Amino acid sequence: MDRKKSRNVSDYSLNLASSAKKSSSQLRLMTTAQKNGVLRRLSGLLLDPEQQKGLLHANERDIEFARENQLSSAMIDRLALTEKRIAEVARGVEEVVALPDPVGVTGAFRVLENGLRIGQIKVPLGVVLVIFESRPNVTIDVASLCIKSGNVAILRGGKEALHTNQAFFQLLGQAFLDEGFESMAFFVDKPDREIINELLSLDAYIDIVVPRGGYGLIQAVTEASRIPVIKHDAGICHMYVAADADLTMATEILTNAKTQRPGTCNAVETLLLDAGFAYKRELLESIRQHKVTLKGCSESQRILPGIDSATEEDYATEWLDLILNVRVVKNMDEAIAHIERYGSGHSEAIVSNHYTQIGEFMNRVDSAAVFVNCSTRFHDGGQFGLGAEVGISTQKLHVRGPMGLEHLTTTKYLVMGNGQVRG
Amino acid sequence: MDRKKSRNVSDYSLNLASSAKKSSSQLRLMTTAQKNGVLRRLSGLLLDPEQQKGLLHANERDIEFARENQLSSAMIDRLALTEKRIAEVARGVEEVVALPDPVGVTGAFRVLENGLRIGQIKVPLGVVLVIFESRPNVTIDVASLCIKSGNVAILRGGKEALHTNQAFFQLLGQAFLDEGFESMAFFVDKPDREIINELLSLDAYIDIVVPRGGYGLIQAVTEASRIPVIKHDAGICHMYVAADADLTMATEILTNAKTQRPGTCNAVETLLLDAGFAYKRELLESIRQHKVTLKGCSESQRILPGIDSATEEDYATEWLDLILNVRVVKNMDEAIAHIERYGSGHSEAIVSNHYTQIGEFMNRVDSAAVFVNCSTRFHDGGQFGLGAEVGISTQKLHVRGPMGLEHLTTTKYLVMGNGQVRG
Repeated sequence: MDRKKSRNVSDYSLNLASSAKKSSSQLRLMTTAQKNGVLRRLSGLLLDPEQQKGLLHANERDIEFARENQLSSAMIDRLALTEKRIAEVARGVEEVVALPDPVGVTGAFRVLENGLRIGQIKVPLGVVLVIFESRPNVTIDVASLCIKSGNVAILRGGKEALHTNQAFFQLLGQAFLDEGFESMAFFVDKPDREIINELLSLDAYIDIVVPRGGYGLIQAVTEASRIPVIKHDAGICHMYVAADADLTMATEILTNAKTQRPGTCNAVETLLLDAGFAYKRELLESIRQHKVTLKGCSESQRILPGIDSATEEDYATEWLDLILNVRVVKNMDEAIAHIERYGSGHSEAIVSNHYTQIGEFMNRVDSAAVFVNCSTRFHDGGQFGLGAEVGISTQKLHVRGPMGLEHLTTTKYLVMGNGQVRG
Repeated sequence: MDRKKSRNVSDYSLNLASSAKKSSSQLRLMTTAQKNGVLRRLSGLLLDPEQQKGLLHANERDIEFARENQLSSAMIDRLALTEKRIAEVARGVEEVVALPDPVGVTGAFRVLENGLRIGQIKVPLGVVLVIFESRPNVTIDVASLCIKSGNVAILRGGKEALHTNQAFFQLLGQAFLDEGFESMAFFVDKPDREIINELLSLDAYIDIVVPRGGYGLIQAVTEASRIPVIKHDAGICHMYVAADADLTMATEILTNAKTQRPGTCNAVETLLLDAGFAYKRELLESIRQHKVTLKGCSESQRILPGIDSATEEDYATEWLDLILNVRVVKNMDEAIAHIERYGSGHSEAIVSNHYTQIGEFMNRVDSAAVFVNCSTRFHDGGQFGLGAEVGISTQKLHVRGPMGLEHLTTTKYLVMGNGQVRG
C-alpha cells in the first residue's frame, strides 16, 4: 500500500469512527418510544413496494457480479433477496420493537453506613463495530438490535453483498431522517481490507467488535483488534450416551441434534458411546438411516461394519454437515477427557438415567451450556427465552451462551450523597 | 532473538500455560472448605517467623540489586518488605477467606413450555494471567483472589521484585502441598520480555489477562494480546461545581477528592467551575492552601492570580499528584463536553443543589461511576461493599468499576430435560 492510499484509509476510518462516537452521545439518550419509532419506520420502508424495487435492483448487481466471478450456487443463494426474504427482515425488525428496552434498567439501590445511596443502571456500550459475511439480512438484524439497545453500529459486510448492504443501509438512514433525527448508523462503503484493520485499532472511538462469520474471519479479527471482541466461534458439540441410557430417548435426541439443522453451531459433531451401553449397534444403525456418514474409532468399526476411520483431525472438526464422529469410551471419565481435548466449549449433552453421574457431568463439563436428556439444538437465544440474539458467545468474558439485547449494554454506578467525603 | 532462544521461550511458555490449564480442571472443582484451607495455611506460613526470615532475605537481594541499579528511593520503598508489611499481606489473605465463594451460585431455575428446566450457575474463568509491576504484595493479593474463585493464576511480576515474588510464590506452593494438593499456581520465573508476548498469544490455554500497572504496561498488553484483557486504566476524574453549589460542601469534597490520596486513580484531576458559581475565588484559594498547584484557563487566572496556564495536554493528564487543572465553564453542557473530550470514563462528580440538573448530569455522563455531592474517592470495591478488589475496570465489557471476586467467574447454562427435541 503506497503512502497516499494509506493516508486515505486512515482518514476515512478515523472520520467514520469519530463520527460514530459523536452520534453515540445522542443515540444513547433516545427514549424507548423514539428508538421504536425509528425501527417501525424502518420496517415500513422495507415493506414499501417502491423501496423493495430498489433493494432488489441493488441485489441484482451483486448477483451479477457473483455470477461473473463464478461464486458457488450456494453462495449466490445466500446472497439473493426476494420479496419474501425482505418481508422476513421487516418481521425481524418488528420483533426487536416488541422486546423490552434493556437501557436504564436499575437494580436495587443500597444505602451505605455513611448515608450514600448507591445503585447501578444499564447503559448502552456506545459504538459497536459489526463485521459479517455474505448474508445481507444481517445488516438490518444487527442494526436493529444496536438501535434498540442505544448503540451506534458501524456495519461492515462482505464485498460480494456491497450494493445490497448499501441499499439496506440507505433505508436505515432514511428511517432516522423520517423520524426527525440525523442518521445515527454507519456503513463501511469501501471494500478495502485495510479499513478493517485500521478500524480495529481505534479503541478510543469503538467500544466492541462483533465478528459474525467463519473461523478465518474470527481469527483475523481477534489477532488484529485492540478493541474487545465478542466471539461467536465454532461449535464442536458432543453427546455422551451413558451405560444406562434409554435407547429410544438416545435415538430421538441424537437424530434431532445431528440432523434437524446440521449447518448450525449447536448441532452435534461427535457421539461418545459408553462401552457399557447395550444398544450401541442399534443407535449407530438408526442414525445411519438418516443419511449420516459415520467416522469412528476401531471399536465402533467393529460394532457396525462400514464406518470410516476417524482421524485426530476429524474429532477436531466442526462438520456443519451430515457427518458424525463416533468414539466408544470406557466410562464417563474418558468421555469428559475427550470433550476437554477436542471440544470448543459450546454445547455438550449427556443421555443417562443415573442421578449421581448426571450431576458429575454437569459439574465437570466446562461449556457454555450442558444438556441433560435433551437436544443441544435448544442452545439458542429464542429457545432460552431471551428474544432475538446477536449470536452465541463461546468466550467466557461478558457473555457466555446466547448474546441478547441485554449484552449490548454495560453498567454505570450512580452514587448519591449529601456531602460525604472519605475518611 | 536467535532461533534457539526463541524455541526455548516458546517451549517454556507453552509448558507453563498448558500445565496451568491442566490444573484448572482440578482447581475449579475444589470445595469452598478446601480452597479456604489452602488460603489459611498460606496465611499461617506468612506469619511463621522462619518463613518471614526467608522472605526478608529474598527481598534484600532485590533491594541490593535496586540500589546497584540506582532505582529511586520511592521505588525502593515500594519494593521493601518488613515484618509489618508481611503481616498485612497475611491479613489480606484472611480477608479473602472471609468473603463468600462466588462459585456455584445459581440464579432461579425456570421451567420452559416444553418442560425443560433451565438455569445458570457461576463457574471459574479458568486460567488467569496477572501481569503486575514492582509492589510484591500484589503476588499474594491476586493469587488469593484467584484461588478463592477457583482460578489458576499465572503470575508475572516486575523483574526488580523477582526474588521476593519467587519467595512468596514458594509459600503459595507449600500451602497447596501442606493441604494435600499439588501446587496449582504458576509463576513466570524468567525475566525475558518475550515470554509475556508468547503467553499473550496462547488463548487456547489462558482465559483472561489482568495487567496491573502504568499506562505503558496496559497499552503494551492490549496491543499484543489475543486473550481478552480486563484493563485497569487511567483515572482522569472530573468534579463539576454547579452555579448553586454549597461552598462548604464543594470545598470539603474537592479537598478530599484531590488531597486525601492524590496518587490513586479515583482522585480528581480537573475542577470544572460553573461561571455562575459565586464563590469561585474562595474555592480556588482554599484548595491552594492544601499545597495543591493549580493549572487553569485564562478566566481562572483572572479570578485568582498566580495560577499557571493549563495546556491541552495538562487536561489529558492523570497527575496522581498535588496538581489540579481548573477550567471555568459557561454551563453544564460545556462541563460535559470537556469530560467527553478529556475524561477516561472512570469517575466524575457534580456538586449541585439543582434536582433537574443533577438528574441530567447522571444521565448524560458516561463513566464507570457518577458521584453526586460526594467524593470520587469512594470509587472502590471495599467502599462499595464488594470486599477485596482486583482493581477498577474502565472498560465496558464484563465488568465496569470495581472488579471483585464475582467478576473472576463466568456462567454456565444447565438445561435438564426428559427427552425433549427441537421441533
